Amino acid sequence: MPRIALGIEYDGSSFAGWQSQLHATGVQAVVEKGLSVVADHPVEVVAAGRTDAGVHAAMQVVHFDTTADRTERSWLLGAVSNMPKEVSVLWSREVPEGFHARFSAIARRYRYVILNRVPRPALNAHRAAWVREHLDEQRMNEAAQHLVGLHDFSSFRAAQCQARTPMRDLHEISVTRHGELVILTVCANAFLHHMVRNIAGVLIAIGTGERPVDWTAQVLGYKDRKLGGVTAVPGGLYLAGIRYAAALKLPSEPEFTVLAPVPATCPQVRDQV
Amino acid sequence: MPRIALGIEYDGSSFAGWQSQLHATGVQAVVEKGLSVVADHPVEVVAAGRTDAGVHAAMQVVHFDTTADRTERSWLLGAVSNMPKEVSVLWSREVPEGFHARFSAIARRYRYVILNRVPRPALNAHRAAWVREHLDEQRMNEAAQHLVGLHDFSSFRAAQCQARTPMRDLHEISVTRHGELVILTVCANAFLHHMVRNIAGVLIAIGTGERPVDWTAQVLGYKDRKLGGVTAVPGGLYLAGIRYAAALKLPSEPEFTVLAPVPATCPQVRDQV
Repeated sequence: MPRIALGIEYDGSSFAGWQSQLHATGVQAVVEKGLSVVADHPVEVVAAGRTDAGVHAAMQVVHFDTTADRTERSWLLGAVSNMPKEVSVLWSREVPEGFHARFSAIARRYRYVILNRVPRPALNAHRAAWVREHLDEQRMNEAAQHLVGLHDFSSFRAAQCQARTPMRDLHEISVTRHGELVILTVCANAFLHHMVRNIAGVLIAIGTGERPVDWTAQVLGYKDRKLGGVTAVPGGLYLAGIRYAAALKLPSEPEFTVLAPVPATCPQVRDQV
Repeated sequence: MPRIALGIEYDGSSFAGWQSQLHATGVQAVVEKGLSVVADHPVEVVAAGRTDAGVHAAMQVVHFDTTADRTERSWLLGAVSNMPKEVSVLWSREVPEGFHARFSAIARRYRYVILNRVPRPALNAHRAAWVREHLDEQRMNEAAQHLVGLHDFSSFRAAQCQARTPMRDLHEISVTRHGELVILTVCANAFLHHMVRNIAGVLIAIGTGERPVDWTAQVLGYKDRKLGGVTAVPGGLYLAGIRYAAALKLPSEPEFTVLAPVPATCPQVRDQV
């Protein structure tokens, strides 16, 4: 039975998260529904990582098994045409039987987007966190480096996290500014529940000057969530990509598109008043 | 009676347009409601330009008269806290009695955002037009220059346009690429109904190669809407700024933030499989 992998993009604003809840639909349900129409049999998908309510994906990866004989193009176009506007399929590939979207992943990347300005967001209402106080992104970036490496991330782990171990290998982390936007990028072998949002909470408190630069190292050392920072809001978080063995030749991660400034080009109009 | 001007940002996806329709709320209604709470009397606002359903604003400008004595900060914070998440106030200023958001404006700027990629948008579902075929943005930019200057824009004017004259002075127009996004920026003294979306429709047909580069000049010369291109979808359009006399010292136009690519920074993880 062929196994197919898909790259999925979604705006999480209107979903219960990846998984459905009692009274709210998850992204998984609409992806399965779209694929079931194309397959002409019920399809169940396995995702590389579950996202919470309000969290977005620039690239989630899923796999599923099917008895249907369809081209990659048919899976892509057929599924997309049976999904709501907020969910799309970026690519489709047949993968070896042993491929598993979650267990075959060797690294994940998340982005956390902060709108750093005084006025409340409107265009970015559901797409970024909002911080009024000026953020020093270089200070945040410096503070973030303390987290690189293999560590016990208990201080950044939600109480309801079901992972067997709090050890995670954080490969790279950076904080950069793009006009009014401050973007945190984190790559690790895997993540604990709320880990990126909890890292964002700590870095925001450092960026405003409320906490010292070495607070990340202190919080990490406590190994106690109660001594960490606040959990930043879900709307700023994007699952940005999943990395698999190069031999699988899966499509590379997409360009990450966020709300970033485009300079004005209109010339000064001659003052007529 | 003091006259106040406000800069307003909004996501037009969930509104009937600037004005309310019979069964759907307009942005104007929620702005007036928010201001009326702060003023403690009914407030009516006049906008620099009306936007259609689904069209966004990075900066709309309105004015209103009030008998209430409030600080600029009170107008801003009070109004925002009484408006839905998709609408925000960027600034508030007391202006001279003779100021008129619409008639005092000396120029307007619009942006039209196109997502140019094969997969259907999801994160940008309501925020950009989607063109699958590759767009040659340099060709589009060259074609656009034919529109600069004082012209009869009848070919780019909606049938229902109520303007007294089809003459408009187009100050500047440019088409630039930012990764998967192609952005059209147009500045003019004023615009006809659907003018930017009709220009976008013509430029897209030139960008795909369906029409020659000089088609803009041909369409302009026809002075007949029926010989123009399609009207591009509303979700790609943003009112980006309004220019007034410098002596008024109104806040300058904001950085325009659109979905633009942020390069990946995660290093290649050592292949473990």
